[in-house]
Amino acid sequence: MEKTMDKIVALAKARGFVYPGSEIYGGLANTWDYGNLGVELKNNVKRAWWQKFIQENPYNVGIDSAILMNTQTWVASGHLKGFSDPLMDCKECHERFRADKLIEDYVKDQGITLDSSIDGWSFEEMKKFIDDNNIACPTCKKHNFTDIRKFNLMFKTHQGVTEDSKNEVYLRPETAQGIFVNFKNVQRTSRKKIPFGIGQIGKSFRNEITPGNFIFRTREFEQMELQFFCEPDTDLEWFAYWKQFCIDWLKKLGLKEEELRVRDHDPKELAFYSKATTDIEFLFPFGWGELWGIADRTDYDLTQHQNHSNVDMSYYDDEKKKKYIPYVIEPSVGVDRVTLAFLCSAYDEEELADGDKRTVLHFHPALAPVKIGVLPLSKKLAEPAEKIYMELCKYYNCEYDDRGNIGKRYRRQDEIGTPYCITYDFDSETDNSVTVRDRDTMEQVRIKIDDLKAYFEDKFRF
Amino acid sequence: MEKTMDKIVALAKARGFVYPGSEIYGGLANTWDYGNLGVELKNNVKRAWWQKFIQENPYNVGIDSAILMNTQTWVASGHLKGFSDPLMDCKECHERFRADKLIEDYVKDQGITLDSSIDGWSFEEMKKFIDDNNIACPTCKKHNFTDIRKFNLMFKTHQGVTEDSKNEVYLRPETAQGIFVNFKNVQRTSRKKIPFGIGQIGKSFRNEITPGNFIFRTREFEQMELQFFCEPDTDLEWFAYWKQFCIDWLKKLGLKEEELRVRDHDPKELAFYSKATTDIEFLFPFGWGELWGIADRTDYDLTQHQNHSNVDMSYYDDEKKKKYIPYVIEPSVGVDRVTLAFLCSAYDEEELADGDKRTVLHFHPALAPVKIGVLPLSKKLAEPAEKIYMELCKYYNCEYDDRGNIGKRYRRQDEIGTPYCITYDFDSETDNSVTVRDRDTMEQVRIKIDDLKAYFEDKFRF
Repeated sequence: MEKTMDKIVALAKARGFVYPGSEIYGGLANTWDYGNLGVELKNNVKRAWWQKFIQENPYNVGIDSAILMNTQTWVASGHLKGFSDPLMDCKECHERFRADKLIEDYVKDQGITLDSSIDGWSFEEMKKFIDDNNIACPTCKKHNFTDIRKFNLMFKTHQGVTEDSKNEVYLRPETAQGIFVNFKNVQRTSRKKIPFGIGQIGKSFRNEITPGNFIFRTREFEQMELQFFCEPDTDLEWFAYWKQFCIDWLKKLGLKEEELRVRDHDPKELAFYSKATTDIEFLFPFGWGELWGIADRTDYDLTQHQNHSNVDMSYYDDEKKKKYIPYVIEPSVGVDRVTLAFLCSAYDEEELADGDKRTVLHFHPALAPVKIGVLPLSKKLAEPAEKIYMELCKYYNCEYDDRGNIGKRYRRQDEIGTPYCITYDFDSETDNSVTVRDRDTMEQVRIKIDDLKAYFEDKFRF
Repeated sequence: MEKTMDKIVALAKARGFVYPGSEIYGGLANTWDYGNLGVELKNNVKRAWWQKFIQENPYNVGIDSAILMNTQTWVASGHLKGFSDPLMDCKECHERFRADKLIEDYVKDQGITLDSSIDGWSFEEMKKFIDDNNIACPTCKKHNFTDIRKFNLMFKTHQGVTEDSKNEVYLRPETAQGIFVNFKNVQRTSRKKIPFGIGQIGKSFRNEITPGNFIFRTREFEQMELQFFCEPDTDLEWFAYWKQFCIDWLKKLGLKEEELRVRDHDPKELAFYSKATTDIEFLFPFGWGELWGIADRTDYDLTQHQNHSNVDMSYYDDEKKKKYIPYVIEPSVGVDRVTLAFLCSAYDEEELADGDKRTVLHFHPALAPVKIGVLPLSKKLAEPAEKIYMELCKYYNCEYDDRGNIGKRYRRQDEIGTPYCITYDFDSETDNSVTVRDRDTMEQVRIKIDDLKAYFEDKFRF
């Protein structure tokens, strides 16, 4: 079975996981809308994160900060000055390119291995490499570029009635800063002691030049971020702890060993303030892609905010009689990206014993958008089947389907990853039982209607 | 007991419900961040909406569309042309005002009753009224205004590398249009038949000139919207159905009869395309405020999108062999606003039998941010108490508190609205039981530790 992005994108659109955004108007480059199943899948991913990172974790609490923040935040964080792409124009055909991508594509093409990551290069070094190697414009094939200049990736807008610079505000490029500026507030109101973490799920926006690969990289995206505050010198221990925690979360939700790899950043690659960074990568149909970044950010962020706001960001440890600015471990994952990983991982085409074929999404039951399909064998059995559906709906997202023969209906539920199907048949009236079919084994068991609630009790837990 | 906004805002900040946004930088006008308890409260409100409007409702499905949409959407919806405030400047002191608000304040001051709502007035009518009545500038008290001009309330930004007009995009001012443009997609993938609805929860942005009243009116806000598609001529029945559905939802979650009123719009007030509109209002400490708008929008939106996109928006009714553009009923509520209503309604200060006082939030258990407080009577009992906490955490958001005497800890949990407190005492070791205290009645019962899960089973359901 060949698992391709084309198949995944087609299934996603056909079955209501993801549609192109603003589609009736020809779309809006690289925006996507989650459909009737996609919204449930994405919400389940978010719930599973919140459950393990916040609700069940005795160290952590959550917040939900605004997308629009005081611009000083982005001065302090460095985003206003440094969060940019290196752009250059072709003087011949006037196309615009990212210099780093141009180099990346070139070295890949030529099979060259670079000594260091391009991320660390200066604009001059990039320009020199492009000139030295006479790299051509991908569009017109000539070599005649402008100098490289910075393009800030933050979306800018204006709040208030005039469009002057004092009213400029930015859409946040990350949720992390909303946590840092609230560090003191949350510490005070939650009365947490170090070590503790603050987590947040929310939208961020980056005016990427080259988004792509479906919902893998989009300009508008959702993040699940934890900032974990700890005592200096305990940071590398906590870094290891959270790295393992994230891997466990992904595996417990069904990603397979061979689909995951962990890439520790080389010291040369590290941001200057970071002591350690690791990417958890997933094998998408288009290749390995970063899923989760775990970074030891030291006391950089809180110190920056302390310097810019003049608010004391230090923490006083009562027991050790010690005052310090906490170190921060940041595990940060994109919701859309990890949702895509779960979708890709779950996808399968199976040849069945009877020679039949089925497409099936083997979602972890906690992630499956529809938990239970309720299928009356005949439309004549609608009333009692609907009664079961209405009862189970109170607990789980269910679907009622009475259209087509039962085999087709099973296939349809397989294709959207429904873990269980209940069939109400003509015997059900007399034996007060229904058939429950398992998506993965396709085995069927007969269960008393009164026992259904207990039967499903722990089936969707994570 | 006087319930004031000052008290609510102070409690919200002190206990981690809501902080001023970007506070360490002096804030950003009218943005707010939800703290460690606020995020749980708001999430519970959203879950309660999703549960009753989507999960348990056999008619409806959900979606999650992007904030950034193709600009043609706002041409079709009328927002680009018509979604604006009437602004005028004082020529003397150069302050800027909303003409309609100036008139509103003036007539209130003078005790004048107007024949019609200002919303329906033309700019000329507003200017004439201001001139005829010689209304003065609130700042410099002179009367010398510019003409009134439109100020569009949509936040504008640019997507892509150049800031020219072809790259202009807007932050959506409402989630509704994301549903309309996906009407065909969702109908196709959900295979729903009319009548059916599409619901969505998400952020919207309006560059309001006069936001205010804490989280009641903010520029960045979250909406819960349902667009319910029905056959023409059945619309007024469905309008009545959803109006009652919304009222029931609010009451079931604890809002009181006397805190709610329903205001049907006068025909003069209706938007030209609307057949009926109702506001459900809540009595906030600052007065009655709109909570939920329910509108019969006829086939206006789908027709507009059909005309602008050339995509056929009609629905073919298989059984009746009839083709039509569906009518739409829209119940739309602001998450922040309804969360504020629940917070205000829950707030109480009680004088107890022993002369003591307590502040208590009487949240519906489904909305309470912390469901169960676990309190060991002594720090010596930490181990077994923590065990109970860790077990219950898997199911509910719990808090472990071992600081201060037990009376103080009860008060603290009352003040954040925790419905149940478990006290693990020195007898617990021998009788394998704990005391469970009810927030509202303050009564205590002794429950076997092994029975706790069953005891709480249905306590937080809604």
